[in-house]
Amino acid sequence: MKALVFDGKKLALAAMPVPRLRAGEALVKVNLAGICSTDLEIMRGYLSFRGIPGHEFVGTVVSASAKHLIGKRVVGEINVPCGKCATCRTGLGRHCASRSVLGISRRNGAFAEYLALPVRNLHVVPASLSDEEAAFTELVAAACEIPEQIEIRRDDTVLVLGDGRLAAMVAQVLSPRTARLAVLGRNGRKLSALRRLGIRTHGPRAAKSLLRSQDIVIECTGSPLGLPLAARLARPRGRIVLKSTFHGNLEWNPAPLVVDEITVVGSRCGPFEPALSLLRKGTVKVLPFLSAVYPLERWEAAFRAARRVGAFKVLIRMD
Amino acid sequence: MKALVFDGKKLALAAMPVPRLRAGEALVKVNLAGICSTDLEIMRGYLSFRGIPGHEFVGTVVSASAKHLIGKRVVGEINVPCGKCATCRTGLGRHCASRSVLGISRRNGAFAEYLALPVRNLHVVPASLSDEEAAFTELVAAACEIPEQIEIRRDDTVLVLGDGRLAAMVAQVLSPRTARLAVLGRNGRKLSALRRLGIRTHGPRAAKSLLRSQDIVIECTGSPLGLPLAARLARPRGRIVLKSTFHGNLEWNPAPLVVDEITVVGSRCGPFEPALSLLRKGTVKVLPFLSAVYPLERWEAAFRAARRVGAFKVLIRMD
Repeated sequence: MKALVFDGKKLALAAMPVPRLRAGEALVKVNLAGICSTDLEIMRGYLSFRGIPGHEFVGTVVSASAKHLIGKRVVGEINVPCGKCATCRTGLGRHCASRSVLGISRRNGAFAEYLALPVRNLHVVPASLSDEEAAFTELVAAACEIPEQIEIRRDDTVLVLGDGRLAAMVAQVLSPRTARLAVLGRNGRKLSALRRLGIRTHGPRAAKSLLRSQDIVIECTGSPLGLPLAARLARPRGRIVLKSTFHGNLEWNPAPLVVDEITVVGSRCGPFEPALSLLRKGTVKVLPFLSAVYPLERWEAAFRAARRVGAFKVLIRMD
Repeated sequence: MKALVFDGKKLALAAMPVPRLRAGEALVKVNLAGICSTDLEIMRGYLSFRGIPGHEFVGTVVSASAKHLIGKRVVGEINVPCGKCATCRTGLGRHCASRSVLGISRRNGAFAEYLALPVRNLHVVPASLSDEEAAFTELVAAACEIPEQIEIRRDDTVLVLGDGRLAAMVAQVLSPRTARLAVLGRNGRKLSALRRLGIRTHGPRAAKSLLRSQDIVIECTGSPLGLPLAARLARPRGRIVLKSTFHGNLEWNPAPLVVDEITVVGSRCGPFEPALSLLRKGTVKVLPFLSAVYPLERWEAAFRAARRVGAFKVLIRMD
């Protein structure tokens, strides 16, 4: 099969064997795969991943012991736990220390014609959703993780820090929960797209007037500068949800967290069913945040487009 | 009056005017003042404080509009809020942005013959406590802040990271709440002092076997290395209470907080009444953690002693 392979230095289109299935796994023919910031960080060395990256996808099951799934259009949760360790036994399989993660750690990913995932990781996509919409499920799920972790009250001020793909999903997922949500970003075009959905936005110059004011700051900048800024925007005893992972170090004195007694909640992948439900109901709109769809042959242009300032989601059509 | 004054470069014994009282304040003759790690960080530039440092003290009220306090032995909470701003109105005066803090920010402190604090900041010391014991109240209160902020269940594993003065108080305050508390430290003599109180301890070589295992890590190292290590010791979805403040930067990739969905709770000063109560009942023992008491004239030796590896609390007798 054709696949994009990262050898630790560069990404290249290569011929790879179709994944062999282990017990309980399904073979999925990938329709669309999304380029995520984590993929771009992996290209810079994050997590020292080698192999086929890509973890956002929509595809069609071509082979599985669970016959009823064959031919079904699916999206998939990316963590594959061992199922046996103490962490797995307490129901925290997503945090299993010996898990593999699709296209991120010890498991080839979605920038390929085929991928393998356990059947229990797969979720059938409602017929009303297009492939393009379904390809956002993993990203919307990451936003859905936030209300699973922290309580948001209607009168809480919530500031989403960042104006990228994830920030756009987070703003939409949390908007119904508080009347006092806004996005603080830098890119005028991206902020306009959010305003068109009725979401309040601030440009970078507003940061000064928002210092020490927010009950909750959701850090989605993808940058090492995000957490220090979030700590200045949160009110004393406020909360920060930390979403960004990046290659390289942050250089910072975390004293504001101590002095202002701020709580930082790390937040990663989230639940797929609520995400699919929000997509199906149209509560979360994703097409305004789709920049382009490229065929696999034009993967280099796709990655260039995803890196561009002002780009939202870039998808690659694998078939 | 005699006082230790920090001019931004060095500390020196100097003659200073006795503090003038503002409305609601009491004049306190300082009996004993403790040297805290924060004082040592201030000497290195932390918070750019200038003036008389020192915020741990026990003293005697010599003048106050509240006449019943005169002659009483007191300890004092160190934050002096404005009482008028939005933060103060919500009851978070300790986090008032225009507060002064005794010996730390915009208010002269306790390394002096006299200090001024609002009457409402003062707590009368039970007669059964010696001056030396009472001088630990602020430190014990900082430990008492932790159970105000996070829930600790009896079966939670709790690891106190660090073996200094604060770690010793934290271990004693939290010990009755869980059967599974231990201290991870480096200094054999300090760890022995904790073991003599029945507290389980680990030396540095144990860290490797404790990775990703702790429900709660209380970071009391006073070092920039504390938070990164705490993040490796906490289990996925575990909690870290961050206590250390220091001068200078931490250089670190906070990805483990995101990937393992760890919560970090910044924690600072705490409530005095529970601290005095624990001291009075003997639940928290402080005298094993008193290294030395120096007269004011020997302040240089006192600071040298406080900086020494293996030192616990060093007090300065001001009268």
